[in-house]
Amino acid sequence: MTDRYAEHRQIARTLGVDAVALVPGPNFVRLFHQDFHSHERPLIVLVPVDGAPAALVPNLELRSFDLLKFEGEVFDWRDQTGYADAFAALARHMPLTSVAVEGQVMRVFVHHAMATAWPGLRVVDAERQISGLRLHKSPAEVAALEDAIRLSERALQRTLDQVRIGQTEKDIEQILTLSLFAEGAEEQSFGPIVAAGDNSARPHAHARADYAVKAGDALLLDFGGRKGGFCADITRTVFLGHASDEAQAVYDTVLRANMAGHAITRPGVTAHDIDDAVSRVMEASPYADRIRTKTGHGLGRDVHEAPYIMRGNHQIMEAGMVFTNEPGLYQIGSFGVRIEDDVLVTDDGCRSLTTFPKDLMILP
Amino acid sequence: MTDRYAEHRQIARTLGVDAVALVPGPNFVRLFHQDFHSHERPLIVLVPVDGAPAALVPNLELRSFDLLKFEGEVFDWRDQTGYADAFAALARHMPLTSVAVEGQVMRVFVHHAMATAWPGLRVVDAERQISGLRLHKSPAEVAALEDAIRLSERALQRTLDQVRIGQTEKDIEQILTLSLFAEGAEEQSFGPIVAAGDNSARPHAHARADYAVKAGDALLLDFGGRKGGFCADITRTVFLGHASDEAQAVYDTVLRANMAGHAITRPGVTAHDIDDAVSRVMEASPYADRIRTKTGHGLGRDVHEAPYIMRGNHQIMEAGMVFTNEPGLYQIGSFGVRIEDDVLVTDDGCRSLTTFPKDLMILP
Repeated sequence: MTDRYAEHRQIARTLGVDAVALVPGPNFVRLFHQDFHSHERPLIVLVPVDGAPAALVPNLELRSFDLLKFEGEVFDWRDQTGYADAFAALARHMPLTSVAVEGQVMRVFVHHAMATAWPGLRVVDAERQISGLRLHKSPAEVAALEDAIRLSERALQRTLDQVRIGQTEKDIEQILTLSLFAEGAEEQSFGPIVAAGDNSARPHAHARADYAVKAGDALLLDFGGRKGGFCADITRTVFLGHASDEAQAVYDTVLRANMAGHAITRPGVTAHDIDDAVSRVMEASPYADRIRTKTGHGLGRDVHEAPYIMRGNHQIMEAGMVFTNEPGLYQIGSFGVRIEDDVLVTDDGCRSLTTFPKDLMILP
Repeated sequence: MTDRYAEHRQIARTLGVDAVALVPGPNFVRLFHQDFHSHERPLIVLVPVDGAPAALVPNLELRSFDLLKFEGEVFDWRDQTGYADAFAALARHMPLTSVAVEGQVMRVFVHHAMATAWPGLRVVDAERQISGLRLHKSPAEVAALEDAIRLSERALQRTLDQVRIGQTEKDIEQILTLSLFAEGAEEQSFGPIVAAGDNSARPHAHARADYAVKAGDALLLDFGGRKGGFCADITRTVFLGHASDEAQAVYDTVLRANMAGHAITRPGVTAHDIDDAVSRVMEASPYADRIRTKTGHGLGRDVHEAPYIMRGNHQIMEAGMVFTNEPGLYQIGSFGVRIEDDVLVTDDGCRSLTTFPKDLMILP
């Protein structure tokens, strides 16, 4: 019988710690095919180097936890009594001196509860190793990603068909959101970015209720639907009514940078190489001072995951990895342009899972 | 000139720590009226007992951070170089031996970065104190909550009008989600729970794509829209086609428990008293063994916040507090019923902000 914890045990062994601790989130879902609303209630699974796992579970989640067909002891706790006793019982059941955790997922209150239950516990941030198990996407996972991307592209088309001068950024955000769910998204990958005019120059802008889009504006839409546990993440920048010469030149530069990223990507190049190829296009342009971000990030169950596509990251790209290629140029107070594709590394190159056109588009 | 950090400085003083550290989330938004996509990039604001605050901000967020009109020094960092140097510079700028953090918001990787930058730092989980600043809702905040609740109720009506026997839980979830956004929600307060039949007996169920609702099923909908930063959280349980005698009796019990919660709530009673009054109704029924949760939780910018309405919590209720009154009875393998209102404590009692009817409803 296969041990579904084999990879996690290996991580613990390699790091020289007694166990891996998992909390609800993308790694948890990949392993157990179930997620939990966590909020103020800790839920934790401990996978030791050898032997049965153990878990700490809120009592009200026990019937949902049953769906995991969990192999080990479960220590439940009720809201009325709190979780300290359950942590103590878990610690007696599985003595630990060190543990590897997902540093970007686990919150400090769980960390503190563990430090109390296992005095002197050494907590190692193994985000990179644990989430690293998600680096290579299986064909089924790629298919799920493509499904999310296709529906997101249909939602984008639906949205652009409805955009009109005079709508606010918030209006357009609502159209985009409704379109995503109408096309079958189960969730949004993240709160979408719908930003026009000067707001498009903020890489992570928030839609404004008091700004109506006007002729000449850049309109940047960065969004994605999630389906079957996988996230799309797409950006397109369009123009309303007309695009100035400068806007066209900037758009062309960003598009060439994006294409340079596609062109260089194949197994064996590094994340550094890709960012370098993309960035060099923009650095050689008159707009070098408008660069504000790295080229991209991995994409899968989480909308930001490894590999991070940036200079200095010498991680070697391999077939099955998926990342965003999203160069942008942002002129503070004026406008920004970003073009973002989701790219799969293949055996002999790469394939853009995003297929939405990238020619400069001017909406009427 | 008012010091917008006065409350946070007071918390630090009371706890005997050098500063409060805030990260993006509900407390951050309350203070600064801006939120940030955080993901893998730390952003932190330090508020010392006296003197100017300081911040660590990802470079690509600087133009969004400008909107805060921040009073102190800002240490930015770029993806390409990482955040360790910025943390070190922040630590030189503001030496700390102890800091209070939001334990349910801050993640372990930020905690680790702080522990590295300030060796020996004592990190105190002050979630209760910091989020406690959100306990009392101002009239404007109550109005924002009511706005979110009203639109959520309209979305519920819209959804129930469209529910048909033979739809899957996922179909109904999609209808509900589209209805929320169509009615003006900016986000969902949380991934909605749409559960029928045996799935309704899981307090935090996930909608199934392979279960079609059938006559006689309970259909539990727990959901809410977020608008203006505030969350609705409503549950209604309806029946399809017909409701068995047992279902009617269980529904009646839960409704009486919910009403008992409304009846007892006024300034001066404790969270314990409310849960006790609600629970006693269910404990005195033939269904006592189906109780699985506390009565409820506070509601505001976060969908789960203080005050937690449970026995053992002797927090005194005061005017301006808002909480969910959500008793439920869950029979594993059979069905569950939950009725959830959002309740405001007023000067002389309480007012249910939720006004959607609670009579047993049988959809055709």
